[in-house]
Amino acid sequence: MSVTQSSLKIGELATGPDLTVPIFSLKAEKATAPSVYIQANVHGAEVQGNAVIYQLMQLLEGYTLCGDITLVPLANPLGINQKSGEFTLGRFDPITGVNWNREYLDHKVNVTQWYEAHQELSNTEIFIHFREMLVEGCHQRLSDEWGVTSGHRQAVSLQSMAHQADIVLDLHTGPKSCKHLYCPEYEADAASLFSIPYTLLIPNEFGGAMDESVFCPWWQLSDYMNAIGRECKVPVSAFTLELGPQEYIHLEDALIDAKGILAYLSFRGVIAQEVEPAKMSRYACYLKDYKKYHAPMGGMVEYLARLGEPLEAGSPLANILRLDLYGSERVLTPLSLSQDCVPILHFASASVYQGTEMYKVMTQVFEI
Amino acid sequence: MSVTQSSLKIGELATGPDLTVPIFSLKAEKATAPSVYIQANVHGAEVQGNAVIYQLMQLLEGYTLCGDITLVPLANPLGINQKSGEFTLGRFDPITGVNWNREYLDHKVNVTQWYEAHQELSNTEIFIHFREMLVEGCHQRLSDEWGVTSGHRQAVSLQSMAHQADIVLDLHTGPKSCKHLYCPEYEADAASLFSIPYTLLIPNEFGGAMDESVFCPWWQLSDYMNAIGRECKVPVSAFTLELGPQEYIHLEDALIDAKGILAYLSFRGVIAQEVEPAKMSRYACYLKDYKKYHAPMGGMVEYLARLGEPLEAGSPLANILRLDLYGSERVLTPLSLSQDCVPILHFASASVYQGTEMYKVMTQVFEI
Amino acid sequence: MSVTQSSLKIGELATGPDLTVPIFSLKAEKATAPSVYIQANVHGAEVQGNAVIYQLMQLLEGYTLCGDITLVPLANPLGINQKSGEFTLGRFDPITGVNWNREYLDHKVNVTQWYEAHQELSNTEIFIHFREMLVEGCHQRLSDEWGVTSGHRQAVSLQSMAHQADIVLDLHTGPKSCKHLYCPEYEADAASLFSIPYTLLIPNEFGGAMDESVFCPWWQLSDYMNAIGRECKVPVSAFTLELGPQEYIHLEDALIDAKGILAYLSFRGVIAQEVEPAKMSRYACYLKDYKKYHAPMGGMVEYLARLGEPLEAGSPLANILRLDLYGSERVLTPLSLSQDCVPILHFASASVYQGTEMYKVMTQVFEI
Amino acid sequence: MSVTQSSLKIGELATGPDLTVPIFSLKAEKATAPSVYIQANVHGAEVQGNAVIYQLMQLLEGYTLCGDITLVPLANPLGINQKSGEFTLGRFDPITGVNWNREYLDHKVNVTQWYEAHQELSNTEIFIHFREMLVEGCHQRLSDEWGVTSGHRQAVSLQSMAHQADIVLDLHTGPKSCKHLYCPEYEADAASLFSIPYTLLIPNEFGGAMDESVFCPWWQLSDYMNAIGRECKVPVSAFTLELGPQEYIHLEDALIDAKGILAYLSFRGVIAQEVEPAKMSRYACYLKDYKKYHAPMGGMVEYLARLGEPLEAGSPLANILRLDLYGSERVLTPLSLSQDCVPILHFASASVYQGTEMYKVMTQVFEI
Repeated sequence: MSVTQSSLKIGELATGPDLTVPIFSLKAEKATAPSVYIQANVHGAEVQGNAVIYQLMQLLEGYTLCGDITLVPLANPLGINQKSGEFTLGRFDPITGVNWNREYLDHKVNVTQWYEAHQELSNTEIFIHFREMLVEGCHQRLSDEWGVTSGHRQAVSLQSMAHQADIVLDLHTGPKSCKHLYCPEYEADAASLFSIPYTLLIPNEFGGAMDESVFCPWWQLSDYMNAIGRECKVPVSAFTLELGPQEYIHLEDALIDAKGILAYLSFRGVIAQEVEPAKMSRYACYLKDYKKYHAPMGGMVEYLARLGEPLEAGSPLANILRLDLYGSERVLTPLSLSQDCVPILHFASASVYQGTEMYKVMTQVFEI
Repeated sequence: MSVTQSSLKIGELATGPDLTVPIFSLKAEKATAPSVYIQANVHGAEVQGNAVIYQLMQLLEGYTLCGDITLVPLANPLGINQKSGEFTLGRFDPITGVNWNREYLDHKVNVTQWYEAHQELSNTEIFIHFREMLVEGCHQRLSDEWGVTSGHRQAVSLQSMAHQADIVLDLHTGPKSCKHLYCPEYEADAASLFSIPYTLLIPNEFGGAMDESVFCPWWQLSDYMNAIGRECKVPVSAFTLELGPQEYIHLEDALIDAKGILAYLSFRGVIAQEVEPAKMSRYACYLKDYKKYHAPMGGMVEYLARLGEPLEAGSPLANILRLDLYGSERVLTPLSLSQDCVPILHFASASVYQGTEMYKVMTQVFEI
Repeated sequence: MSVTQSSLKIGELATGPDLTVPIFSLKAEKATAPSVYIQANVHGAEVQGNAVIYQLMQLLEGYTLCGDITLVPLANPLGINQKSGEFTLGRFDPITGVNWNREYLDHKVNVTQWYEAHQELSNTEIFIHFREMLVEGCHQRLSDEWGVTSGHRQAVSLQSMAHQADIVLDLHTGPKSCKHLYCPEYEADAASLFSIPYTLLIPNEFGGAMDESVFCPWWQLSDYMNAIGRECKVPVSAFTLELGPQEYIHLEDALIDAKGILAYLSFRGVIAQEVEPAKMSRYACYLKDYKKYHAPMGGMVEYLARLGEPLEAGSPLANILRLDLYGSERVLTPLSLSQDCVPILHFASASVYQGTEMYKVMTQVFEI
Repeated sequence: MSVTQSSLKIGELATGPDLTVPIFSLKAEKATAPSVYIQANVHGAEVQGNAVIYQLMQLLEGYTLCGDITLVPLANPLGINQKSGEFTLGRFDPITGVNWNREYLDHKVNVTQWYEAHQELSNTEIFIHFREMLVEGCHQRLSDEWGVTSGHRQAVSLQSMAHQADIVLDLHTGPKSCKHLYCPEYEADAASLFSIPYTLLIPNEFGGAMDESVFCPWWQLSDYMNAIGRECKVPVSAFTLELGPQEYIHLEDALIDAKGILAYLSFRGVIAQEVEPAKMSRYACYLKDYKKYHAPMGGMVEYLARLGEPLEAGSPLANILRLDLYGSERVLTPLSLSQDCVPILHFASASVYQGTEMYKVMTQVFEI
């Protein structure tokens, strides 16, 4: 295995310097397995993925690589470096407000038309051409004569690397959050390999995120080919791993997740040696059953429900404290939900407006 | 004419107080003409619409009202009151980054189905039921058991008022900008009545804005009815007026735009007296020909092209100054476009990243 | 005991509404003991003080009041309601950058001159006149013909209430922090009464904070009188309580601190009943020995040292992770300090620039 | 004349890259005249100084240099590159809120003591040693074992360069502003040379700004030496030039100011050729007569008074529009001042809270 470091320019600051992301390329002596692309920290405050990449690179030194791995930590230099007060304002472009993870290119491939033009080819050749088309689509987008936004440039530059891999892992975190995985429905088995207790099974809908930008076109192609009777599995895999809370670096915890990734890579043959997945209970729900609970009133919040633990309908979720109402019973409002759930994450601040997204909870949870 | 003032709660602050918007209701003695809804300042820094409402209310005291008018200035209290440094951070929700003018409800009406269930009715009755359905859709959205976001609550609360009117005007401004109008293609004639030199003709696509949220469902219904041979004009009108630059209050200038609005209301019969539109040249282009030009490099910007004046292909648009490159020819990079256009607005700051949206320009402009 | 609620206007928003703070007045049947002023949440993200006031008001219902108590929770409505991303940007005025707790009025009393004009009076009369002069100074400041800044208006409005009390508690929190107390050197005994393990003993220097604005003029007067041979204790007490981390509401923990405050009030005779202070070890250092440690390099931070626990010289304080330097030994830089200390608080974010204030630590700590 | 470019590291970003400022060194063939240090853009939005440096460097190519000139444009990379919405949040450190131009080192030289230790030396030798002491003080500050804040590191790094020059120009702008000059009282004659109509004469008080950090220690030394009967002019000159509004790059206007600087440099012998100062009326007032007018109420602001033009007492300064009060006479409140003045700058936004600093005006203005 050889490690080489390079960097990719993804923008320019007002003062002149290039915005760049570091790239680590781990090359297999003889690549026979799927290739891998892993990025971290696209949301500026979600730093733990860098620690996971650090641990993963160290672990990989003890294994034999059968597929190439590209690692891109610190993938959003503008977002990571922008503080507002003591916190990293890293979720959206400070100029436009656009979420950095909703900036990826929707290729809007007409798969019917594309397939018809390539139907004579073998599956392998189809895959090669389809991939080329996706990568080329990114390059064309970046060379638009009217230019593209800073956020889109960054995203599509990363995406063009991701399209060249068979396996794509985008390392994120929640605000205050337990670990969870966004996994496309066609790849549900993979959820048993990572060291992550909760999985969201997501459908084939493009909302702008990295994982979707990678698997959606392939999933559409595969669906179409299967529909007309030509069997075809989706040949790429893409996941978003949410590795706990934001503004948090913990090397020991990162080692656990690096081992989980290793277990998945081992299963896929990317490393020669066998790595057992962690023994743990794992649960899932469908994305449609992943609910956002918004603050029914403004106030100070005492978060009560523990993240990653089942919460029965009617059990205490949170208290809203409203000192201005001392003397009335509304000074302390207990909140609960009307159905069983597992709280996965909650808002980062302890004060909310009416309507602030307070909790995201899984409902209709099942073991996997 | 009677004027009554009320207020609508659209949220709650963390410290407790309600977020409210002021509402001025001008009632016709006998309402025979279309009803009108006008709001201003949904983007926090775009304050001039308030001055226009002020002038309009004063002007209307001299006219006879034949239709009711509802005026909602200061329509985004959270956005207006949030400074970041010396400027109002008013374009997007500071928590989520979502543009305040992309928060309106997409009713996703199945017009075919809806029409089939109501086809026995007269056009007038159809309109009454369709309107009720839209208003009711807003109310249902606001009472979702999981709650809705702060921005959506505000938007849908405003929208439910707008749906009750026949004419909707949403008063905005650009960053640094000349006056321009967003006008649905079916209503192009109206563009000759406002005191606004440039018009964007927009298609029937919902992107989240107030004007679209109002006209899209009606336009779909009308298209469907026409398609099956039942003649039906779109019975509502909705426009976004961009009244110059943001962070700018100018009462005299506001009077000009108030008179333009009055000319439109006069044409529509909302006031009994005739008001002549301003004599001026007016131009338009289709939305697809409204182009965003993004900074090809980072640096300091000298904006050269004058807003609202035709710019020939190849003429100076802006200079990018890069002091770090003094000594090379890249210290000063002149920018121009490869086609004729009219620059309508430019970025508010004099320094840009690569990719910052520098100019928006109309191309393929024609006189109307 | 009677509780009455009122509110004080401390500003006006751009959209019109008054900025107000809620005031709860608890009146003793017969006030024989010192009067008390307690405020909370002057820094917008430091919300736990509100919970402490909530618990304190509930506890006080079971006691007999011998001195009046004024409670002002939610004391900074602008700061509390301003989010930037998911966090409260509450430490400084978003327009000017001035720390909300550095906005109090420096009376700059010439105590020599003032004393000479009042030396004939008894100590009690001197105190009455001096207090009147301080309150009047606040009122005069607020009626300056050129106006005063928003932050200064808020601060001086609060200060004019505080000057009317004998005991002033300003409830704050750190970023990530253990509990600690700012206590003027002349009042060191009080540190044994609150439920707070660490105390900073502060000298008579005005830096703009509430506690200093209250005790500095009195301390100067007292020093002067003692210097010329007229014995005089400082007749007011003022403390800043740092009640753990920001963005944190915890009612049970708040009860502990409410009881600590009650123990202090009991000692001072403000309540008739005796309340024992919590049995716990308490430590202190002088303010000059409270050290700020700034990040020696930029990077991602793993905070290792536990807050509120002694740390020997050379022990691990934190790691700085620099993924861009993978392959060099600088990828992970362990940090430690060259002297024994107790880390009291650390920065809220897990990424830092070079120079970011990472830790504040007590050195030269002694038991009290 | 030779021009060499270098750069100085003044910090490190969280992602790793150094923060650097570009330095242009123009060396005289034979330096016989004072040396010069010019910096620009310490406040991130105040970009026009870069354009002035650009024009000045171009102009200087046609002149003979007799003193060395160091030019540092883009002097605050963090501040320049931080947008918040469409504007540059450049006035204060986004983490701490501290104004970037209040971060310079106060040497707190005990001039009595210092002079006594050096009184045997000639004036020239005294100046050399004093300068060395100042530069060394900066270096010591930067190597503090506990580190220094990011903003202080940047400021003191710049300051250590400035201390090595005899003439220091710090190029700033106001928000919306006419051109004005901060000039120490001892150097009032210089105000007739720059192309700047208004001058503030400032006393020997350190408030944290670059110009003060440079001249204050020298002024104190000079005052002391004069007081004990040893004649001594202040041997350094330091000015802050406020070159119009922020967020504004205008090359032609920059040329005017570059020529004004050239006239001053010519007068001081830094260039061999004579350059006439612009013929224009120039006015001044003392800093104590430079008044800040704060908004007496919240609302929308129509700025009426023209910047740089005398305004008689009672003349219209601004209108405050309060749409929520339509129907009462407070809907439009005209503001004026009770004394004659010249408005120099006003707030950047068109909406204000009560207390927002609306205007800064010179009073007691006299011609110079």
